[in-house]
Amino acid sequence: MALLVSKFGGSSVASIAKIKHIANRIKSMQHKGDQMVVVVSAMGDTTDELITLASATGGELCGREMDMLLATGEQQSAALLALTLQNMGCDAISLTGWQAGISSDTSYSKARITGIDTTRIENELKQGNIVVIAGFQGLSSQGDITTLGRGGSDTTAVALAAKLKAERCLIFTDVEGVFTADPRIVKDARKLAKISYEEMLELASLGAVVLQPRAAEFAMLYNVDVEVLSSFSSNPGTIVTEVENMERQRVVSGIAHDRNCARFALFDVPDQPGIAKTLFKTLAEHNINVDMVIQSAMRDDINDIAFTIEENDLSRAVPVVQSLVEKICASGMFYGQDVAKVSIVGAGMQSNTGVAAAMFEALADENINIHMISTSEIKISTIIDEDQVETAVRALHSRFELDKE
Amino acid sequence: MALLVSKFGGSSVASIAKIKHIANRIKSMQHKGDQMVVVVSAMGDTTDELITLASATGGELCGREMDMLLATGEQQSAALLALTLQNMGCDAISLTGWQAGISSDTSYSKARITGIDTTRIENELKQGNIVVIAGFQGLSSQGDITTLGRGGSDTTAVALAAKLKAERCLIFTDVEGVFTADPRIVKDARKLAKISYEEMLELASLGAVVLQPRAAEFAMLYNVDVEVLSSFSSNPGTIVTEVENMERQRVVSGIAHDRNCARFALFDVPDQPGIAKTLFKTLAEHNINVDMVIQSAMRDDINDIAFTIEENDLSRAVPVVQSLVEKICASGMFYGQDVAKVSIVGAGMQSNTGVAAAMFEALADENINIHMISTSEIKISTIIDEDQVETAVRALHSRFELDKE
Repeated sequence: MALLVSKFGGSSVASIAKIKHIANRIKSMQHKGDQMVVVVSAMGDTTDELITLASATGGELCGREMDMLLATGEQQSAALLALTLQNMGCDAISLTGWQAGISSDTSYSKARITGIDTTRIENELKQGNIVVIAGFQGLSSQGDITTLGRGGSDTTAVALAAKLKAERCLIFTDVEGVFTADPRIVKDARKLAKISYEEMLELASLGAVVLQPRAAEFAMLYNVDVEVLSSFSSNPGTIVTEVENMERQRVVSGIAHDRNCARFALFDVPDQPGIAKTLFKTLAEHNINVDMVIQSAMRDDINDIAFTIEENDLSRAVPVVQSLVEKICASGMFYGQDVAKVSIVGAGMQSNTGVAAAMFEALADENINIHMISTSEIKISTIIDEDQVETAVRALHSRFELDKE
Repeated sequence: MALLVSKFGGSSVASIAKIKHIANRIKSMQHKGDQMVVVVSAMGDTTDELITLASATGGELCGREMDMLLATGEQQSAALLALTLQNMGCDAISLTGWQAGISSDTSYSKARITGIDTTRIENELKQGNIVVIAGFQGLSSQGDITTLGRGGSDTTAVALAAKLKAERCLIFTDVEGVFTADPRIVKDARKLAKISYEEMLELASLGAVVLQPRAAEFAMLYNVDVEVLSSFSSNPGTIVTEVENMERQRVVSGIAHDRNCARFALFDVPDQPGIAKTLFKTLAEHNINVDMVIQSAMRDDINDIAFTIEENDLSRAVPVVQSLVEKICASGMFYGQDVAKVSIVGAGMQSNTGVAAAMFEALADENINIHMISTSEIKISTIIDEDQVETAVRALHSRFELDKE
């Protein structure tokens, strides 16, 4: 008898019909003799509706009261799933985050789990209950309800799987798993049977979010096997696990792309210590996240600096950068949102030379101009024109033979 | 500096606009230097919407999971009111039932408060916060969320006022207070400045529900002064208090009526011990509440039995009573829903003779036939034809001079 922790996201519990669908699935899993802990997100649009109500009050959309408000969404879906399971003849009980013993710090709206007291969960499992837990929430040491921020339900599930020493953590979502590239762009993209934690993290940071980065980090830290799979099909998903567990070390596992990119270039920036600090500290203070940065020494005492940000942040960023140009005595700036990021990710890259060259060659063969490049141990990212994204993804998928097993 | 406990019902928090309205009112009360504890119900239709969702699961609409679900409604309105108050520059914090230290038994959906640990509330008040508390809910000794049943938020407020030794408990509602009769029927009906707990209880049991009977009982037990007043006007309301506090003992304080009545008559019931028990126990087992009962000995060994129930229960009751007629060997039955109850209520009735006679005379003068009569120490109720209700209420209001101070 294994203990499984499953997590169902908002789209999987968006209606009572969908809740009944997943309840059937949970029931069939339990009938194999497994003990079941199920973590749920809020129903479909509940969180957005609550945020709309809160906006109308004029109050701050973060902080203690906001967490108090938003945590009700998961409490509702947990209770509704337990009711549905009971009606199917299963013993089931729902628990809030605090009833499930999940402690957190007090960083409202992005709290971190500090510990889990699993006494109650284990008692309920012993009594034969399917234990349905409201994801995304914890209790601070002051006795206040906190929420764990974006992807918090994934984190709840992985943390519970770690603490309960579950055989596996199943993340049910609306995609079938992790693919070698976006199947909407690459027809012969394949679903990966396995992927390493590190690769999953890189893919998530590149926008291919099937498992939240914080949850992936948690899984890596506590060595929890996570399977990402579809709520709506019975196909096996993708298992996120340790590199050592992988059948073979692929050089490149997948091609990621992200259209949510904008770039800035600052011309003739004086080459003085502290200039970069001023620039990026100011952007951070305005909560603008800088992704890639390139500094090119044109002459001895003058640099050009280019960087990318999320396209969503562009309108906020422009006046900030404009004022910085004046402050640091640059000669001018340029910005544009007609760019995108295309990346290759693979744990095997570390021990293989020539991967970058192969990537650049594949892009050059398609007459794709590379504006910026950044590399990490298991990832190479390029910034190219947005209208060439699909061509680039297909070319790279083919070049690294990802259509083949 | 006084401590006030205020309660706002679902219609007072039905929208953010209404929440802003009551937040302004709370702010102005605080500016008089009072410490404020505010109990809220769920927004408008929230509870009904949650019940609709739960019905769709096919699960039981009572029990632990249902309480888990419904308690979210009050948590949401409490958080939204706290956000609104904060946005107006007030220090405010919302607390769930369990955060407010409210313990209950485990009778889900109709739990009773067993104790209140006010430590957290008092700490928050000391820090200058307006403390907004989710009404209608408590925590069982097993750590499970319970709800207190119909009118539970009134009970929460009165219990908190008792425990915190508040100067007064203010029940804000959509009516201006307790009237001598329904102002829609009697043009010169007056708002009562004061009413005794006992009178309030009788009026509530007769359908004039401005303060829930359980809350009125609690107020009587702990001697809490309760003021029932409108959220939407600044007029003083009606104070529910001890009889000794009343300026003068009115013979009759108000005329109540209830159209939600149906009557049964059973003919030729054998006069044997246990027959009445069989009859009313069976109805109780079917959750059908019997109000008035009359047994008339027609002959030595045969009775007629008549009784009234809520009209809502009629369709469920008919087959039950039909089968009972056969079981107890009565000769037949009659039922009808064309009746209503009209009652006079007054604490002074106890020490005044001739009140019943005056009531029956007033009805007779209007050619109103009385089907059934029942009396208590401070109430006389009659069952009459439904189409004569308004005439009866006006005649009694006038007969007992309730239009005069």
